Amino acid sequence: MMAEMMQESEMCEKLRTLMDEERYVHSLGVRDCAVMLAQRYGADVEKARVAGLLHDCAKGLPREEMINRAVEAGIELGPKEFQTEALLHGPVGAVVARQTFGIDDTEILSAIECHTTGKSDMALLDKIIYLADYIEPNRDFPEVEELRRAAMEDLDKAVLMALRRTIKYVLDTDRFLHPRTVEAWNDMLKRFKEQKIEG
Amino acid sequence: MMAEMMQESEMCEKLRTLMDEERYVHSLGVRDCAVMLAQRYGADVEKARVAGLLHDCAKGLPREEMINRAVEAGIELGPKEFQTEALLHGPVGAVVARQTFGIDDTEILSAIECHTTGKSDMALLDKIIYLADYIEPNRDFPEVEELRRAAMEDLDKAVLMALRRTIKYVLDTDRFLHPRTVEAWNDMLKRFKEQKIEG
Repeated sequence: MMAEMMQESEMCEKLRTLMDEERYVHSLGVRDCAVMLAQRYGADVEKARVAGLLHDCAKGLPREEMINRAVEAGIELGPKEFQTEALLHGPVGAVVARQTFGIDDTEILSAIECHTTGKSDMALLDKIIYLADYIEPNRDFPEVEELRRAAMEDLDKAVLMALRRTIKYVLDTDRFLHPRTVEAWNDMLKRFKEQKIEG
Repeated sequence: MMAEMMQESEMCEKLRTLMDEERYVHSLGVRDCAVMLAQRYGADVEKARVAGLLHDCAKGLPREEMINRAVEAGIELGPKEFQTEALLHGPVGAVVARQTFGIDDTEILSAIECHTTGKSDMALLDKIIYLADYIEPNRDFPEVEELRRAAMEDLDKAVLMALRRTIKYVLDTDRFLHPRTVEAWNDMLKRFKEQKIEG
C-alpha cells in the first residue's frame, strides 16, 4: 500500500525525538484506540495505526516553524486568530508526515490534517482518528466514559457528541470557533438525520 | 429621518393582525427593552423603538410565504437546512418592515434582519435588538437575570454571553449552526479581546 513508508519501529523512534514523553504516550494511545475503532467499523487497520501514531507529529514545533511549514506547503493560513498551535498542528502534521515520515497515502494525510477541527464530509478514517484522539485511554474528563461507550455503538453519534463538547469548550474558554468545526457539525448532523429517516 | 414611516399607533395596529397575542406582547417587551438599552448606550432611541417593535413582523408567516418573499427580494436562501422559520423570519422581517411598514432606514432594517443569527461586524443597534429580544421582561430562563445585569454593564460582553448560550442551545437540541452566528461570535470576541488589550 505505501511503498517507501518507514517501518513502525523507525516511525516511533523518530516520533520520540519530536515530542515530550507525555505526548508520545498519548500518540501510542491514539494509535491503539484507532486500531480498535478500525476493527469495529471495518476501516483499514494499518492506515488507522499509522494515522493514530503520527497525528500529533507537528505538535512539538514552535508556532513560527508551523507557520513557515504551512506557507511552504501552500496551506491557506486564514485569519490571524486561527493561526494558533492548536489549529495549525493538524494541517502542518500532514506536511510533516509526508516529508519526514514518507507518508503519501491521502486517507492517512487527511485524517492527520483534520484531527483537531474536523471538516465537512469526513471519511471513515477521519472520524476514527478524530474520536481516538478524544477518548484514548490517557484522556480523563467527566464525559469520557459516555463517549467511549458511544464510540463502540455508533461512530457518527460519538463524533457528533465530541464535536458538541469541543464547540462548548471553545465557547466557555473564550476562543475563536473554527468554521471547519461548524461545517463538520452541520454536515455530520445532516447525514445523521438523513440516516435516521432512511433507517 | 423616515419621511413616509407610519405613526407608532398605526404600526401596532397592523402588527397585531400579523401575529398572535403572545408574540405581540413579546414585541412590546423588546421595544421597551431596546429603548432602555439605546438610552444606556447612546443609540438612536426612536430607531431602537421601531426596530424592537417590528423585529418579529414576519414570524407569523407560513414557511412557504417566507421563502417566496425572500426569493422575490433577492435574499440568498442558502442550504435547505437553514430554510427554517426560525432562521428566515429575520431577513424576511426586514422585507416586510420595508414593504408593509414603510421602513427605509438601513440601521433599523439591519437590526431586524440579523436579530436571530447575529452577523459579523454588528452595529450598535444590531446588538441592542439582538439582546433586547433575548432579555425582554417576558423572557424566562435560568441565566436571564445574569444576562440582564450584564446588558446594563457591558453590551458587548452581554451579546457574547447571549451568542454563547444560543450556540449551546442549538447544539443541545441537535440543530444546524448558522455560519453567521459563528461569524458574530468570532468577530465580537476579536473586538472584545482587542478592546481589553487597548483598555
